Amino acid sequence: MTPIITAFERSPDGGRGLARDTRVRWALEEVGQDYEVRFLSFQALKEPAHLMLNPFGQIPTYEDGDLTLFESGAIILHIAEGKLGLLPDDRQARARAITWMFAALNSVEPPILELANAKLLEGDKSWTPARLPQVENRVKDRLAQVSTYLGEKDWLDGSFSAGDLMMASVLLRLKSSGLLDGYPNLAAYVARAEARPAYQRAFAAQLAAFMQGS
Amino acid sequence: MTPIITAFERSPDGGRGLARDTRVRWALEEVGQDYEVRFLSFQALKEPAHLMLNPFGQIPTYEDGDLTLFESGAIILHIAEGKLGLLPDDRQARARAITWMFAALNSVEPPILELANAKLLEGDKSWTPARLPQVENRVKDRLAQVSTYLGEKDWLDGSFSAGDLMMASVLLRLKSSGLLDGYPNLAAYVARAEARPAYQRAFAAQLAAFMQGS
Repeated sequence: MTPIITAFERSPDGGRGLARDTRVRWALEEVGQDYEVRFLSFQALKEPAHLMLNPFGQIPTYEDGDLTLFESGAIILHIAEGKLGLLPDDRQARARAITWMFAALNSVEPPILELANAKLLEGDKSWTPARLPQVENRVKDRLAQVSTYLGEKDWLDGSFSAGDLMMASVLLRLKSSGLLDGYPNLAAYVARAEARPAYQRAFAAQLAAFMQGS
Repeated sequence: MTPIITAFERSPDGGRGLARDTRVRWALEEVGQDYEVRFLSFQALKEPAHLMLNPFGQIPTYEDGDLTLFESGAIILHIAEGKLGLLPDDRQARARAITWMFAALNSVEPPILELANAKLLEGDKSWTPARLPQVENRVKDRLAQVSTYLGEKDWLDGSFSAGDLMMASVLLRLKSSGLLDGYPNLAAYVARAEARPAYQRAFAAQLAAFMQGS
């Protein structure tokens, strides 16, 4: 069976690859797994047929035969466990790579989501100009910690892993904010991730879908 | 080897069990694994010895022989993979339980963290009274979705799993806010989780530590 993922018919990021299907496409490309995409309108996300697959009405979902998953973290972990290329064989190294997946999603992404909410959902509010620097500082605290840990290394823990895929995907959301510029080793880390052929293929595929849908 | 976790010497929640060591204690209790606790002052969290274990300067960490992990999600997944009791044997059911772990941490907890930040970090700001209802609405959106999915079921997907442990742990953070009262099936779900003997033991252990440290 070829697994099927869902993605936006027309991504709200304008094809910049920031929707969460890109992460899953990237993981599938890293392990050499073909996939199909079912595109959904914003309206279709909230309809019962999709809510049965993902109760939060979000993309991506992942269907493989009679298995249905949602949450990009869970999907990528499932992909990584089924094929070589994203998790080390060694049990301890594998647990550490999974730790970085959770760190990306639960320690680094929440302040980045809060910053995105401040700009997108509260951009027109009177308090936002005064509040934004504080929200940015919470992001910077995390960036400084990841930057210190990464140091001069290419990847977070040995070879490239699903942990790096997730961390780079999360940090990519900050690219247009300029916040990464304060941490040259993180900016280089993200560039190194973007240069991977598997990322390039994933990015091109989501961009082609956006161009077709727009 | 008996694994060692870290916890606050004096938890900022006053022993209510909301610090993330409680989740890990609970998982260890569910699988019947003894553990030891190393308590850390707020100052010690930021010192190099701890930052080597967790670059974000947070608790909990998990040390088992020469393996060190951080992030409660990663630690609980590691515990669940090594012992019976928190993940189904069936590969598909296992992947779905892990999906709920990620859903708890990446779809439900971020708006709850944002609400906590609004109250704790921005409680004295002029904008907070006007802003708080919007932040609460983002939490309510998620609660409504989880409530709809849960329906009349006892647990999210079949038997109690690490997914329920994580979802209940995340929802417990809302207990004092009153927001759960709007979703009786979620309130009952959280109460069902709290009634588990393993949770009771974990809660009592963290409370005893708080009483001793305070």
